[in-house]
Parts: sequence; structure tokens; C-alpha cells
Amino acid sequence: MAICEGKTWKFGNASIASWASVVGKVESDGPYGDEFDEVVEDNKGGAETWEQAEAQLQNKSLKHALDKVNLTPENMDLIVAGDLLNQCTGSSYGLKDFYIPFLGVYGACSTFAESLLIAAALVNAGYVENCAAVTSSHFSSAERQFRFPLNYGGVRAPTAQWTATASGAAIVTSALEPPFIRSATVGKIQDMGINDLNNMGAAMAGAAYDTLTRHFKHMGTHPESYDLIVTGDLGQVGSDLLHDLFRRDGIALDKWHKDCGLMLYDRERQDVHAGGSGCGCSASMICGHFLSRIRSGDIRRILYAATGALMSPTMVQQGGNIPGICHAVEISYN
Amino acid sequence: MAICEGKTWKFGNASIASWASVVGKVESDGPYGDEFDEVVEDNKGGAETWEQAEAQLQNKSLKHALDKVNLTPENMDLIVAGDLLNQCTGSSYGLKDFYIPFLGVYGACSTFAESLLIAAALVNAGYVENCAAVTSSHFSSAERQFRFPLNYGGVRAPTAQWTATASGAAIVTSALEPPFIRSATVGKIQDMGINDLNNMGAAMAGAAYDTLTRHFKHMGTHPESYDLIVTGDLGQVGSDLLHDLFRRDGIALDKWHKDCGLMLYDRERQDVHAGGSGCGCSASMICGHFLSRIRSGDIRRILYAATGALMSPTMVQQGGNIPGICHAVEISYN
Repeated sequence: MAICEGKTWKFGNASIASWASVVGKVESDGPYGDEFDEVVEDNKGGAETWEQAEAQLQNKSLKHALDKVNLTPENMDLIVAGDLLNQCTGSSYGLKDFYIPFLGVYGACSTFAESLLIAAALVNAGYVENCAAVTSSHFSSAERQFRFPLNYGGVRAPTAQWTATASGAAIVTSALEPPFIRSATVGKIQDMGINDLNNMGAAMAGAAYDTLTRHFKHMGTHPESYDLIVTGDLGQVGSDLLHDLFRRDGIALDKWHKDCGLMLYDRERQDVHAGGSGCGCSASMICGHFLSRIRSGDIRRILYAATGALMSPTMVQQGGNIPGICHAVEISYN
Repeated sequence: MAICEGKTWKFGNASIASWASVVGKVESDGPYGDEFDEVVEDNKGGAETWEQAEAQLQNKSLKHALDKVNLTPENMDLIVAGDLLNQCTGSSYGLKDFYIPFLGVYGACSTFAESLLIAAALVNAGYVENCAAVTSSHFSSAERQFRFPLNYGGVRAPTAQWTATASGAAIVTSALEPPFIRSATVGKIQDMGINDLNNMGAAMAGAAYDTLTRHFKHMGTHPESYDLIVTGDLGQVGSDLLHDLFRRDGIALDKWHKDCGLMLYDRERQDVHAGGSGCGCSASMICGHFLSRIRSGDIRRILYAATGALMSPTMVQQGGNIPGICHAVEISYN
């Protein structure tokens, strides 16, 4: 049967004018700890609950991104945002006080790429001039929602990933200076038959393979066309699987591949098992590390492929699998 | 302080080529019961759980919409979809087997308008040719997620609304024949200070007022410029509040206003308290009732303003309010 191929969208007029990241203490202790805009040392960040603390992360990161380029909320046309919390409350509670038109999205850990590509498409088409893409995750709010109450003290499986306490915000506007958003491919939902809540990487690898393969095909590119292929948070298990899938096609993806889930923490020193995850994982690495290097030209072209496990405790309890998705966004110096 | 005004997007090249609706038994017993494409008599629709049954509603409504115009999944470029279930599993599980690129959105009961306006923007700008907007809700899955387990048998408050068991799907494509999508205004999150899980209408009325007011202003229109202003599911409480808000501006909105939450059921005969709600409520009324009348020209121009209560049981338990949002989409015969 013929399968829907989808399209890769091309943008001549979309750039990222400003960006910011806010992370928690564990993330600030990682290898890129000094590249984030703000560290919230206390797990609750002065809020009463973890969920409210997560909402504050988004509020802070958008404020930093606006301040850096002297934009105020009334200069903005739109926010595209989402997160892992049920009903995406990290976004709605964290961003409501800006009074900016708001499109809520849900892509699990792929949310930052989904937000960026929607923002780029709307800016490039001229519907909006200044559009923010924002997301967050929080270790404690995610653990209790998706796995166990923290005080249960459950032993974590070796394949489990560590949800990042982190947020990233980027302001997309018409093209002025790099980083430019040049193209994007929307992911398809892929069901790899995984139903283990502690093995998200495996659930997402097939989606990354599908989206990257379609993006390369539509753009006439190969992994070597980019400085780096940056996945969201496949972690070790998912990254290995992704390399295996490309190896079958004769492609040594591992030479060009970095995974934000494997970058954010020092796995030798920090007990994060298979790596980091959560919407904030790749959002903070993109906004904390990559975008400034693309602006300076040290990195010329990345394909940012954020992966998401569309994981529902309710569906898994009912015997369902965990579908994955991956959205790809090309970010470049020229 | 100046407040962000946002923009109203205008579309010269977006129409709805096909649409379909699937509803449950209670909805089929309502005043518009014979206008839907399929009725699922059994609450579980042959599935094992309510959540799986809800996913099937989306699967069925998209299939009907495709079949009506002889489209197959490989002809499609994109689905924009979301629902009320945690992690939007009604959409991800219901639509994954189509293998169509997928953007997940979360707008609570405003989801169908959000999906439609994103689809229209992307089609109008030429990124995609055929784009589906899909959503659903299910009384039983929503009650147990947001309120009480059904078998608890709690007494419903008079201000409570009845979550519709319903789904709607529309296929947006470049303009051929009516209904055309002519303009859209993205909503802002509004916090009216409501924290009663059983009073969603009040939480949403302010958002509807804000979005409608901005849409009229940007387009230079008034309520009388439209045959009808169709809100999503304010119900009786929210509709009365909305009329009050417009009355302060000297506008008798009630003359042009219909609310899908007050249309879907016969409140004299059906015990739904303040009216219907849920993403599927306005989606099924738009796809079941309105779009065919706009195609025929019996209705010439509506402003569809779907409202959503961004209601999170977790946040409400923590003392948080229920923010509301409303997205407006102009659908017309010419």
C-alpha cells in the first residue's frame, strides 16, 4: 500500500531573534551548566508545588528571551507552547499573564520542535511577525504524573531516562540574522510495539528514523549535509536503535549524530541512567548551547529532530503501546 | 499598560472539502440527532475501554470525511488534532494507523477551532494541500478523568455541563467551493478567577468576549455582519455571562448568538444541566449541522468561536483557577 509521504516545508523568511533557557540544579551541574540563562536551585523555585514551579520555568524563560532583545509582550503576536503536564498547565499557567495570543500544542518531548516549526511557518507566511515557541519539563512533576510518587522511592530501570527540569523559549521573527529556520518536516505517529514506561528511547527511535529519512529525501540531503543531526532525547537505548536503523540503509548516522538526552548530563558522574528526557531537555540544549553557536557561525547547519513518546499512563495500564513521534527543524547560519 | 492586540489572519485560499461527525446515543437522541454521519449506540463502541472508544470516534470520523470525497490517507499531507484526554490519546491512538504527518494540539474544548485555523493557515500559505482537523470527547472518559468515577454516582451541580460523546473531522484544502475559511483570531488565555470544576461556562465567557471583540475590531465587523455567532460550549451559564459582557458595550449579542452546548441536547427532555461541552460538542455541531448549510448557502457566514476551559484537576486541587481560551474562525459561503 502506498504510504502518505507528507511534505517538507521550506522557509525563506524565518529566523530566531532571541532565545533563553532556565534549568534546575541537576542540569546546571551537567557539562553545559554554565550556558543556561538562569538556574533555579530550589526544586520548587519558591512556588508551593512542582507543577507551579514548572509553570514558572516557562514564565522565566520567555521573560529572558523578550528582555534580551527589548521586546515586551505587546510587541508579540503569538505564543506556541506545550509541555508534559496533563492539560499542558506548565504552558497555560506559566504564560497566561503575558496576555499574548496562544496556541497550545502537545507533542510530548517533541514539543519544542513542533512549536518552532509552527512558529516558523506562521512567521514565514506573514500571519505573525513575532512568535514565541516555549516549552518546559520538570523532573518531580513528571515522575509523579507518569511513573511513581517520588517518596515511594522506586528503583529506576537502567533503560529509564531522567526528565529534565528545564525550559527553553525562542522568539521567531522574519529573517534578519542567523540562526535561520530553513525547513521542517512534521512527524508521523509511529507505534513500535513498546509498552514499557521505562523505555521511552525505544518507543521514539522509529519515529526519528522515519522523519529524518523523509527530510533527507525531500531536501535531497544526507547526514553529511549537516554539521550535526541533533535528536531530542532518545538517550542511549534510543540512539543505539536509531544508528542500527540507519546502518541497514548503509548510513553511518552516528558520525553526525548528537542526542540532547546524552549531552545534558554527565552520565559517568550523574545518576541519570539512559540519559535525559522531557520537553525541556532538548529545548534547553538548543536554547542554551546550539543557537548561540549557530549565530556565531561556529556551527553552520543542524537538523534538530526532537522526539516524543506519546506516553499515557492510562493507555499503558489498559495494555496499550507507547506511540512515538519526531519533528525535524533545520536551523542554519545562512 | 498596553496589551498585546494580536492579529486576525485572513485566508483567500482555504475551504472545507469534506467533513463528518460521529456521536454517541445521547447525542443522537438530541434535536440534531439525524444530522450526524454515524451513531455509536454502545458507550464503548465495541472497544474494551472508554478511552479506546473515544479514540475510535476520531478514527471513524476521519474515515467518513475521507470516504465522502474519495481521498485516501496517502493523499493527505497533515492532520491537526487534539482532545481532552491526558496526553491527547484520543488523537494519537485514534489516528496513528493513518500514517499521516501529525501535529498534536491542546486547546481543551476550543480544540476544533484551533485545529481548523492552523489547518487553514497552512493550506492558505501553500505548505500543505490536504489537511485534516479532528477532535473528540467522550462523556465517560472525561467524567472519570476530570470529575468523579462514574460508579461513584455523584450528584451533578446545576452549573455543570455534559461532556459530549462525539467527534468531528474536517478536511481543509485550497479553495474550490464553500464552505470557505476566511479569517481567524487566535485566543488569549483568560483567568476569570473561577476555580469550580463544575462551572466551566463562567471560566470561558471572558475568553469568548475578548476574542470576539478583537475579531470584530480587526475585521471591521459587528455581530450583525454574520448570520450567526456560534460559540463552542459556553452552556447556559457562560452564554448569559457573554451576553452581559457585550451588553456593557451596547451590543445585543444574544440576537445573533447560538451556543453548540445549548444546541446539541434538548435540555427540557435530556438531563444535561447547563448544556453540552467537550471538544466533540462544537466539532459535531459544526460538522453535523452547520457546514452543509453553509455549502448550500442556507447560512451565508458564521463566526465559529470555540471556547475551552484549560482545566486541570491537579492545578484545581492545588488551589489554582481554571483559565479559559477561545479561538474564532470565520466560515462563509463566499
